Amino acid sequence: MGIVQAQAIMSLDGYVAKQDNTIGRLFDWLQNGSVALRAPAGDFTVHLSPASTEHWQKWVLSLGALVCGRTLFEVTNGWDGRHSLGVPVVVVTHRIPQEWVDAHPDAPFHFVTAGVAAAIARARELAGDADVSVTGGTIARQCLDLGLLDEIAIDLVPVVMGAGNRPFFGELSSQDVLLDNPTVCIQGDRVTHLVFPVSR
Amino acid sequence: MGIVQAQAIMSLDGYVAKQDNTIGRLFDWLQNGSVALRAPAGDFTVHLSPASTEHWQKWVLSLGALVCGRTLFEVTNGWDGRHSLGVPVVVVTHRIPQEWVDAHPDAPFHFVTAGVAAAIARARELAGDADVSVTGGTIARQCLDLGLLDEIAIDLVPVVMGAGNRPFFGELSSQDVLLDNPTVCIQGDRVTHLVFPVSR
Repeated sequence: MGIVQAQAIMSLDGYVAKQDNTIGRLFDWLQNGSVALRAPAGDFTVHLSPASTEHWQKWVLSLGALVCGRTLFEVTNGWDGRHSLGVPVVVVTHRIPQEWVDAHPDAPFHFVTAGVAAAIARARELAGDADVSVTGGTIARQCLDLGLLDEIAIDLVPVVMGAGNRPFFGELSSQDVLLDNPTVCIQGDRVTHLVFPVSR
Repeated sequence: MGIVQAQAIMSLDGYVAKQDNTIGRLFDWLQNGSVALRAPAGDFTVHLSPASTEHWQKWVLSLGALVCGRTLFEVTNGWDGRHSLGVPVVVVTHRIPQEWVDAHPDAPFHFVTAGVAAAIARARELAGDADVSVTGGTIARQCLDLGLLDEIAIDLVPVVMGAGNRPFFGELSSQDVLLDNPTVCIQGDRVTHLVFPVSR
């Protein structure tokens, strides 16, 4: 069975998007390198530094399913029904977007209205032996509070975005959650890749 | 002339203290190692991992003056008039704490009421060719907004503290401030030392 990993591209001050959900300079490292890599699905190509390439390829190969929240789903219009990483997507939502579902009948998208724990369970089924990646805002923090995460992978970007933007770690519990020392610490170009196991 | 560096021991989600100004698990790495190091002044001894030791010693030797805000000064009671790092301290404040000054006539503490830029200028004078370290909450962010910082040094601690605590990067500007790739990325035990030059 795979692991459940929360993943974020995050500024040094903890933000994953601007107030208006744009990304500012957070994704620079995805296009500033010499190695062109086509995403597993769709028309998306990244250009990574050699250091980031190795990290990225390992990550993409490990993936079996993604979990996201409704905000990210809306912002991307559900990736038009096909996530560029080529894996099924579980969307945590209060209400199923029936119009979108009808318009994308073959999309490997799964809408879960029973909360994040149910969403993770569904994603684990879909992923089989591969890993589940939890992306987007407060979902990851909810998973952390519920003890559902094995790892937190942060692509730390050298930018300070300032107050009022969208933090990766949201507004829930204010109890300390201990992580272990990073098992990955790779310096790319305009990104430092860090992977922290969640302490048990 | 030395550089001006903001420095913080920070959780992965960007906090440098709890709401009540206690530190939670942020300082674990200062006492969990095999190398005992006496601080330059006072009775303070740290116990660091070998990796952190080298980083710490280099940092301590580079220091010529510290700048802090009134909150940190109050929380520590002005380090009883003698900072454990053995350098003069410039305190940014609206009002000089005359009673404390009278009680500590020989303390190398300097109170600046004309704002952070004036405080940095005073600290630079005091530091001479050595570096100025800016610690504590919103002062660093103000310096960043005013273009007064050369570097940001983060001791990144693998803990998620949650909302409502004291963020290192405060509530000021929400403009992106670009940093360069880290010039230091050292893995200690329960800390990752990162130093980012501020982009010019």
